[in-house]
Amino acid sequence: MDIRALTFDVFGTVVDWRNSIAREVAAVAQKKGVKLDPHEFADAWRNLYQPAMERVRTGGRGFVKLDVLHRENLEELLPKFGLGGLSEAERDDLNRAWHRLDPWPDVVEGLTRLKKKFILATLSNGNVALMVNMAKRAGLPWDTILGAEVARAYKPQPQAYNSAVDMLGLKPEQVALVAAHNGDLVAASKCGLRTCFVLRPDEHGPKQKTDTKAEHKFDYVATSFIDLADKLGA
Amino acid sequence: MDIRALTFDVFGTVVDWRNSIAREVAAVAQKKGVKLDPHEFADAWRNLYQPAMERVRTGGRGFVKLDVLHRENLEELLPKFGLGGLSEAERDDLNRAWHRLDPWPDVVEGLTRLKKKFILATLSNGNVALMVNMAKRAGLPWDTILGAEVARAYKPQPQAYNSAVDMLGLKPEQVALVAAHNGDLVAASKCGLRTCFVLRPDEHGPKQKTDTKAEHKFDYVATSFIDLADKLGA
Repeated sequence: MDIRALTFDVFGTVVDWRNSIAREVAAVAQKKGVKLDPHEFADAWRNLYQPAMERVRTGGRGFVKLDVLHRENLEELLPKFGLGGLSEAERDDLNRAWHRLDPWPDVVEGLTRLKKKFILATLSNGNVALMVNMAKRAGLPWDTILGAEVARAYKPQPQAYNSAVDMLGLKPEQVALVAAHNGDLVAASKCGLRTCFVLRPDEHGPKQKTDTKAEHKFDYVATSFIDLADKLGA
Repeated sequence: MDIRALTFDVFGTVVDWRNSIAREVAAVAQKKGVKLDPHEFADAWRNLYQPAMERVRTGGRGFVKLDVLHRENLEELLPKFGLGGLSEAERDDLNRAWHRLDPWPDVVEGLTRLKKKFILATLSNGNVALMVNMAKRAGLPWDTILGAEVARAYKPQPQAYNSAVDMLGLKPEQVALVAAHNGDLVAASKCGLRTCFVLRPDEHGPKQKTDTKAEHKFDYVATSFIDLADKLGA
């Protein structure tokens, strides 16, 4: 294999969105004196994610960046959790919690090693500003930000993967997707990319039922970014 | 001023394209036993740059990335300089000389300091792969690659600047363009961006007549990226 670039799914694969969002929501709830289960809020917010992108994928609306979808979904959730009284500035700040997600503990060390051997790019449905702000805060050493906003298509649409390959100036087989989600990797594989499954058994909390193992024959299967660096000789 | 992100013109501002291209062409000419003036070749190649982009800007052809324009222009030049016998692989490699340009001596130190305080993004007419490969080789610590390919518009078209501002999720006045070219900065300023002129008096060699000084009232005027870091308190 002649892999030159690693592209990364981000939510769940690189960062722990569930605990990070719960942390931010808990702080807001405490400030407002509202009682809620912050992990339930995080799950509810994330549950609106795929349906919102699906409207864009199916042409029900033109491309809009994920910050906009997150905000629309937040508006729907706030009154249900007793947070309907948040000001515009508070809503905007809470929406930017997605820019402040924490990486899994192995990520920065693993990426730092992988960067010496490979081009590292995001291939996320998150928009550019979200990815840039997250990386600055968390110390994620991306060479560049690719993905939905640049491709103007949400994964798993082929255009999202094909656009990244084209912009990197490489052949599909010279680009690998690193992801904790079987479906994302299968879609990338159909576009000719190499595949690296990294297990994230806690992404959805203690009761996680999906993506608890590699369900297909991927090129690499790893338990962390450090394990992936070992397996890729980086 | 509340500048959050610095965006950079690259050819001439960050890297010394003229001496770098001359170095690569001289090596090819020597290998082929051809006598030529490598700086004359570099200038001739660069002279075809604006007219090639102008056809895209005016709608004479759809957007194509700069690697393609460079290659078309190279095909035109090679026979004129006695290098018409280059193989496909040799032409491809010489075209990628633009991916291997050297930074000016102050650049890496200046960017490293600036990165602690600001988001750093390219805002170049060079395509993503060109920018990524250049950065890997030269150690340019960009947070992300923006510019013509992502915007699908060549500077100085407003869309090139507006797209970068939009993708960074900032207001125009929170984004500055750093450039050694008066015209680029004037165009950015018309889109509401802040402006930083950095003098590069040797970009076009010893006889340089253009951009030998800041010709307008820019927000910052500096003699190097280190000087710029000083002036921006980074």
